[in-house]
Amino acid sequence: MELLKEVLSMIKPSEEEKKVVSAVTEAVFQIAKEEIDNYNLDIVPYLVGSIAKNTYLSGDHDIDLFLAFPSNTPLEELKKTGLELAKAIGGKLDTYEIAYAEHPYVKATYKGFEVDLVPCYNVENWKEVRTAVDRSILHTKWIIEHLNGKNDEVRLLKRFLKGINVYGSEVYVRGFSGYLTELLIIKYGSFMKLIEDIEFLGKSKIVDLGGWIRKEPEIAYKTIERESESPLIVIDPVDPRRNVASALSWEKFGVFYFKAREFREDPRLEFFFPPEKKTGNYRRLLREKGTNLVTILFQKPDLVDDILLPQLEKSARGLEKVLKKKGFDVVDINWGYMEKAFIMLEVDKVHRPKMSLKIGPEFLTESGAEFYKKNKKVWIRGKRLYSEKEVTENIVDVIKELFIKNQVALGRTIKKEITNSDILVNFVPPKLEKEAYLFLSKEKWNVKG
Amino acid sequence: MELLKEVLSMIKPSEEEKKVVSAVTEAVFQIAKEEIDNYNLDIVPYLVGSIAKNTYLSGDHDIDLFLAFPSNTPLEELKKTGLELAKAIGGKLDTYEIAYAEHPYVKATYKGFEVDLVPCYNVENWKEVRTAVDRSILHTKWIIEHLNGKNDEVRLLKRFLKGINVYGSEVYVRGFSGYLTELLIIKYGSFMKLIEDIEFLGKSKIVDLGGWIRKEPEIAYKTIERESESPLIVIDPVDPRRNVASALSWEKFGVFYFKAREFREDPRLEFFFPPEKKTGNYRRLLREKGTNLVTILFQKPDLVDDILLPQLEKSARGLEKVLKKKGFDVVDINWGYMEKAFIMLEVDKVHRPKMSLKIGPEFLTESGAEFYKKNKKVWIRGKRLYSEKEVTENIVDVIKELFIKNQVALGRTIKKEITNSDILVNFVPPKLEKEAYLFLSKEKWNVKG
Repeated sequence: MELLKEVLSMIKPSEEEKKVVSAVTEAVFQIAKEEIDNYNLDIVPYLVGSIAKNTYLSGDHDIDLFLAFPSNTPLEELKKTGLELAKAIGGKLDTYEIAYAEHPYVKATYKGFEVDLVPCYNVENWKEVRTAVDRSILHTKWIIEHLNGKNDEVRLLKRFLKGINVYGSEVYVRGFSGYLTELLIIKYGSFMKLIEDIEFLGKSKIVDLGGWIRKEPEIAYKTIERESESPLIVIDPVDPRRNVASALSWEKFGVFYFKAREFREDPRLEFFFPPEKKTGNYRRLLREKGTNLVTILFQKPDLVDDILLPQLEKSARGLEKVLKKKGFDVVDINWGYMEKAFIMLEVDKVHRPKMSLKIGPEFLTESGAEFYKKNKKVWIRGKRLYSEKEVTENIVDVIKELFIKNQVALGRTIKKEITNSDILVNFVPPKLEKEAYLFLSKEKWNVKG
Repeated sequence: MELLKEVLSMIKPSEEEKKVVSAVTEAVFQIAKEEIDNYNLDIVPYLVGSIAKNTYLSGDHDIDLFLAFPSNTPLEELKKTGLELAKAIGGKLDTYEIAYAEHPYVKATYKGFEVDLVPCYNVENWKEVRTAVDRSILHTKWIIEHLNGKNDEVRLLKRFLKGINVYGSEVYVRGFSGYLTELLIIKYGSFMKLIEDIEFLGKSKIVDLGGWIRKEPEIAYKTIERESESPLIVIDPVDPRRNVASALSWEKFGVFYFKAREFREDPRLEFFFPPEKKTGNYRRLLREKGTNLVTILFQKPDLVDDILLPQLEKSARGLEKVLKKKGFDVVDINWGYMEKAFIMLEVDKVHRPKMSLKIGPEFLTESGAEFYKKNKKVWIRGKRLYSEKEVTENIVDVIKELFIKNQVALGRTIKKEITNSDILVNFVPPKLEKEAYLFLSKEKWNVKG
């Protein structure tokens, strides 16, 4: 297809770019080797990830260098010596800092490239896997062995997934990982075959490239059972215990599903390179919808997205739940950060009635007599006593009170910042105007947008 | 107690009044006898109710004359001949009309008295009871045999129950019947003893004056089991299958419970003769509460309270339910009639958001594809598709639309009138202003008011 050629011309690295990538990667590899030689241990450096597999997109090339320790190394020593070595290598590059996942690693930069230096175990197969990153070397080997020249098909699929905003397996994306992308191309043979067979993929749901259902039926079925609520179960060819698509959400799979169908009907460059979403006047939209926008704005805590975004989500959902209990109808919620972190709530009203029902005990009880005595007005419905109480009326005061009384389930690490927030009603700072519009108009989530 | 003497002096019929009542009753009885003589059947006239039992209040004396047919009379003949006879008697009185309960009877007037002429079976005991009214003769006999001179105690309790608005076993009152009042006096010996033992009555709950639990344990326990959700189980001394208090609601029992306790602490004439509830400005109250009042006003259908009020309640509850679904928070409901019938709804707002969530099917389905195609904006949450739809905004339009589309569970017999109603927002006609105030202020139901 002409269009795919055009896309490829934009995303496939040129010979020149490849040479630069190779040269920088080789240089990092040599520096690592030299540092490793200072240790008495049998540490092997492995290049993994999209550069090793030659599936990276033009301009998008992080170097993933894994430092593989013998599998009999104690975990504590791997962590300590591994970080020491990674820091030593980082010291020879341009800049570096320590980052944390299951165990610490080093994020460095070199000649404009990002370089991840990750200690791991040198494992032969899935039975030896001890830490979460140990499989990466096996993944890289397996893809190189089976990709069979379909590298550009992987690039097309990656770009398509990025274009429709479903690429990335981070917890705040829950989309398609690079490895999953590669496996789908190996399974379907090409980008277009996958697009054409999307309904089949959605229905058959299980992909078993490693033949595990035959070779290790018990383990494979356990995986299938455990992952039965996932939209896809792609049994890892290098480990039958794992669903490569376990992080994929129904939402992101759904977007891919509909976009694949649309692309089949009307293939356009916009799927790969979408124009920016069109914005509009969020204040006019509020008037038209008859709803209200409450924005909670606060200092962005110094946390990585992997931590911050789930914490924001948790806090937004906590607010939604408790505000519903307090008599406000929460139409939708949104969260994120620009310069500051924000939580947006679309609500039906900003004032609630001043009088709220007070539900008392059943009347033939001690506490019933107490309730009757204590309240000025009391009435009975069924066996139960009722009265009324005066409550805070404005949603801003209600939220502040909830924060002060600690009655919202907030993300733990952002609690301090969020309780010192500004609460804005039907108004956002200029930088958030577009976000507010996309949220209120649902264009932020509109699959057809 | 001085106070009780004072009350009695106001409610006990004078000797003069008694003479008039006796004379009129005797006259009606004679007229009935003469008419019965025209029939070849063995029909016996019975005087029942509070005149027969001498428990009526001054100025409150309806004559209940039952026309008892032999128990071997076929039901159809009892209905036909019974009504014929009742009409013949009615014809000899001042005015009469036919009324309908389980079977038709005649409501007449004579010298300013209301006279009910009710055909029934002449039964010896509960095993012979065939229609709902057959027990009345047994009740009257039992009370006369057991009341033992406590007639004035019954009068005090009746007046107290009327004063606190819990007297009457009609379906729209669900309070204490006259017979229940008499049985409670027989059980507790006096008005004050009952008042003092109200907590004991609430806890012990079961009253068995007929000794049925010993004599007919199986039937009595079946009654207790069936009525276990009632606040009181007063097994009918003349029929172990029946709970005399089965129509009593928890609400009305609860009001009696608290008022009895209050009377003990501070006995005042107001319990028997309450002043009218104080009213206020309902519009100011609405502003203070931050709520809104929607009043549905329509032609009062020509129905008796027994039919009309439950129908109004059903309609009000139907509206409450469907409006909640439509995004309005209904704080409370009220119904009744003055010149016109009305339903009042206290709601949180009169405008709802113009955009409402449209919940679609799961996306991996035929109907999912259809939904996706049909809607302009579509988003995914979990496996499900969502969109939005524009909805009517004003509560008046929403209610009109619900009526037109037949989407409210309305009382069947008032459907026509109600769908041609006026719908008023935060405004009622002058005649309903007090009702609106008592409703919104909860004073209508305030036990302490």
